[in-house]
Amino acid sequence: MIKVCIIGYGNVGQQLYKAFKKSKKVTVLQVYGRSVEPKIKGKTQFINDFTQLLHADTYFLTVRDNAIEEVAKLLPENGTLLVHTSGSMPLDTIAGRKHRGVFYPLQTISQEVASDFNKIPICLEAENTQDAKLLKKLAKSISKKVVFLSSGERQKLHLAAVWVNNFSNHLFHLAYDYLTENQLDFQLLMPLILETTEKLKSVTPFEAQTGPARRHDTQTLQKHLTLLEDPKQKEIYTLLSNSIQEKFN
Amino acid sequence: MIKVCIIGYGNVGQQLYKAFKKSKKVTVLQVYGRSVEPKIKGKTQFINDFTQLLHADTYFLTVRDNAIEEVAKLLPENGTLLVHTSGSMPLDTIAGRKHRGVFYPLQTISQEVASDFNKIPICLEAENTQDAKLLKKLAKSISKKVVFLSSGERQKLHLAAVWVNNFSNHLFHLAYDYLTENQLDFQLLMPLILETTEKLKSVTPFEAQTGPARRHDTQTLQKHLTLLEDPKQKEIYTLLSNSIQEKFN
Repeated sequence: MIKVCIIGYGNVGQQLYKAFKKSKKVTVLQVYGRSVEPKIKGKTQFINDFTQLLHADTYFLTVRDNAIEEVAKLLPENGTLLVHTSGSMPLDTIAGRKHRGVFYPLQTISQEVASDFNKIPICLEAENTQDAKLLKKLAKSISKKVVFLSSGERQKLHLAAVWVNNFSNHLFHLAYDYLTENQLDFQLLMPLILETTEKLKSVTPFEAQTGPARRHDTQTLQKHLTLLEDPKQKEIYTLLSNSIQEKFN
Repeated sequence: MIKVCIIGYGNVGQQLYKAFKKSKKVTVLQVYGRSVEPKIKGKTQFINDFTQLLHADTYFLTVRDNAIEEVAKLLPENGTLLVHTSGSMPLDTIAGRKHRGVFYPLQTISQEVASDFNKIPICLEAENTQDAKLLKKLAKSISKKVVFLSSGERQKLHLAAVWVNNFSNHLFHLAYDYLTENQLDFQLLMPLILETTEKLKSVTPFEAQTGPARRHDTQTLQKHLTLLEDPKQKEIYTLLSNSIQEKFN
């Protein structure tokens, strides 16, 4: 049985706790959170005091990106492998430890929607074979898709994840607000939204592209710009339409 | 049995033909396409000559947006209800006919991927009760979701559809190219991409938003801008990140 402690009980910490709890190969020994109520729940001890941290096989540091460096320094150097779970921070954000690594679940993790870890690719990084093996076991115990990436590769993947998730969700957000302001039902768009991503199972984004910019239909592009009142939205519309037209020149 | 003719045999024309062929309430009498081979297939006559058009209950004009006005004028005024299938063109693009309307399937329709019309909302517009009834019957025969919208409402919905489909697909395209250039596998992003839209079944885009811009994490935003080399991509990244930050101020 692999023993782990989860340090930080935000979105990632909570989802990892739930995922490992279901795994037969992993025990979550402790969960640390600044504001958790101390208690024992199943095999797990919940603590809000660093000094109570026990020795384990792996510590998962799930705090926010710019706290990783500082919190890592506060943890006891007792030989436990310490990994952070950030896509954008390099491995060496964790300093002064023999065993360190990265365990990055490539997903948008929020508390409201439970993540099905089974389908989430987990991107690992380690500095020696022993740590790599341990991380691989841990990742395989909750996900089918496990890859090793360097810090540089992971940063690029994280950037691409921002494009496909954060930015496309923001476009959905802009459309939602626009329709609501105009007393139209966002639900009418849901089949189209779902089809937009389903389609990518069988064709590339290049092949999937449709619409006025793709067709260089300047009449419709102009009409849309007249419909938009917000200058920022006009700017986004123009920039993205130009970018599409460049790809289909 | 409702008799229809489909005029124009591009993506929309072909998909409508397939959908109506399955319906027990509708017969596709004729399909007109500039370059179709004249033939009889099942109950349908394929023609490439306007003058052969027979009287029907409804003509579906599925040509490209800026050809609608011109082609509509060429069609015989024999009392047949003539509808176009465009999201962005107003009803009165069709002039000089007593019976005219709009039949707009709100979906990204391409030849490669067969559309399941059953789930596609169909937005209708008509000028009198009799035409409205006929269009509703036709739409209901292939889709579960049928709504009536004015030309103005439909234009706004079409604009929103461009945001959620064309623009988000373009972001997927940019991410695809970026990863490929960096020898990274786009497939790693697929679970995230699918989750991005699945999530909207249970939460609003506002609630679903995550990422560095949402968190006002300027350190990561700066790092991403350094990673991007293409000035256009830097511009899109900055504009969308600022727009997210404004929504979460």
